[in-house]
Amino acid sequence: MNISKIKRVSLVDQVISQMEALIESGEWQVGDRIAPELELMEQFAVSRNTLREAIRSLVHAGLLQTRQGSGTFVCSSSVLEVALHRRIQQSNLLEILEVRHALEREAAQLAAARRSKKDLEQLKTYLSACQEAAKSKDHEAYTEADIQLHKAIAEATHNHLLIDLYDHMTVSLQDSVHHLVEINSCLETQLHIHSQLVDAIINQDREQAMAAVNDYMTQFKIDTEKLS
Amino acid sequence: MNISKIKRVSLVDQVISQMEALIESGEWQVGDRIAPELELMEQFAVSRNTLREAIRSLVHAGLLQTRQGSGTFVCSSSVLEVALHRRIQQSNLLEILEVRHALEREAAQLAAARRSKKDLEQLKTYLSACQEAAKSKDHEAYTEADIQLHKAIAEATHNHLLIDLYDHMTVSLQDSVHHLVEINSCLETQLHIHSQLVDAIINQDREQAMAAVNDYMTQFKIDTEKLS
Repeated sequence: MNISKIKRVSLVDQVISQMEALIESGEWQVGDRIAPELELMEQFAVSRNTLREAIRSLVHAGLLQTRQGSGTFVCSSSVLEVALHRRIQQSNLLEILEVRHALEREAAQLAAARRSKKDLEQLKTYLSACQEAAKSKDHEAYTEADIQLHKAIAEATHNHLLIDLYDHMTVSLQDSVHHLVEINSCLETQLHIHSQLVDAIINQDREQAMAAVNDYMTQFKIDTEKLS
Repeated sequence: MNISKIKRVSLVDQVISQMEALIESGEWQVGDRIAPELELMEQFAVSRNTLREAIRSLVHAGLLQTRQGSGTFVCSSSVLEVALHRRIQQSNLLEILEVRHALEREAAQLAAARRSKKDLEQLKTYLSACQEAAKSKDHEAYTEADIQLHKAIAEATHNHLLIDLYDHMTVSLQDSVHHLVEINSCLETQLHIHSQLVDAIINQDREQAMAAVNDYMTQFKIDTEKLS
C-alpha cells in the first residue's frame, strides 16, 4: 500500500462544501433564509469567524445573498447556473439564441428517441396550456407554458447534463423570451410549429422534431432582428 | 432625479472582483504565481486579513490554488470553466458527447455561413496536421491537431458564447477524446469525414457541414459503446 499525502482541508472549506451540498440537493431551497449565526456555529461546530468567511465566499459565488437587517438567503441553487448567467449577460441575443438552437435541436431528436409515457403526458399538458393562453391572448401565461413545454422536452432526453445546461440557460433567458412573445406578430404560427414538434416527439420522428425546432428558431431570429 | 440606495461593496469583494478581472483578461495567466502577500497588500491597499480572505474565496471558486511553501498560482481563467468542469465530471461520456454533438453541429453550420479568409487558413492548417499525424500513426499529435481543428471551427462561428462554452467543454473532454482516438479502429475514416467537414465549410454548404458532424459523432458514439 502506498502512503498518500495528507490533504489539508480548512474548516472554512469544509463548511463551504457542506453548505453547497445542502443548497444543490435542495435541502436549503432558493428563497429560504438560512438559520441564524449562533445556530449554524453550533451545527457546524465552528467559530463565528469561520462561519462568516464561508458565508461570504458563498455570497461571492452567488449562492447566498445577505440582506442588511433581515438575514442571509439562498439565491441560486447552482454555481454553474450563476456562472452561466453572468456569462450570458455579456452576450447578445443572437449569440444566445444560436446556443439555445443547438441545445433544443439536440433535445428534440433525443426526446423523440427516448420519451417515456410520463414524458408524453407532460408534453401534452404544457402544449394545451400554450393553446389555452394563446386563445385568451394572455402573453404572460403563454410565456410560462412555453418555458414549461421546452423544459419537459429537455427532461424527455434523460440526459442530465443537457437538462441542467438548458435549465440554467432558461433562467437567464426568461426576460428575452417574454419580450419576444410580446412582439411576436403571429402567436398562432408559433403554436402550430410547437404542436408539430410535440407530434414528432410522440411519433418518434427525430428528423421531423429537428425540423420543427429549426422552423420556430428561424422565426425567432427574424423577430429578434426586427427588434434590433 | 431619484435617490438610489448606496450599494455596500466590501473591501474583500472589491479585491475579488479586481483579481477575477485580472485573471479573465489574461493579465494573470494560468500557471502564473501571483505576487507575494506584502506586495499585493500594497497594490490593493488592503490589510493582510482582507487579502487572505479574497484569495481563499478565489481558491474555493477554483481560479487560484495555494501550494504549501511555493505560493499561490492561477489555475483556471474562468469561473464558468471551473463550474462546467465540475458538472461534467458528474456526467457519463454519452451525456457529454450528446451535448458536444449539439454544439458542434450548430458550430459547423454557422462556420459554413460566416467563416473569414483567416478562419479558412486555420482550418486548412489543422486539417493538414491531422493528416500528418494520422500518416505517422502518432495518436497524441492527432488528438492535439483534432482539438485545434474543432476549436478553429468554433472560432469561425464568431459567436463568442458558443466559442467559450465549447472551449470550456474541450478542456474537460481532452482525456476522453484521447482515449477514443486510441481505441478508434479506423483513423482514416475519421480523417475522411473531417476533410468533408472542412470542404463543406469552405463551400459554405451548411447542410453538408451538419451531415459531416452527424457522421463522425455517430462513429464516436459507437466507439464509446464498445468501451462500456
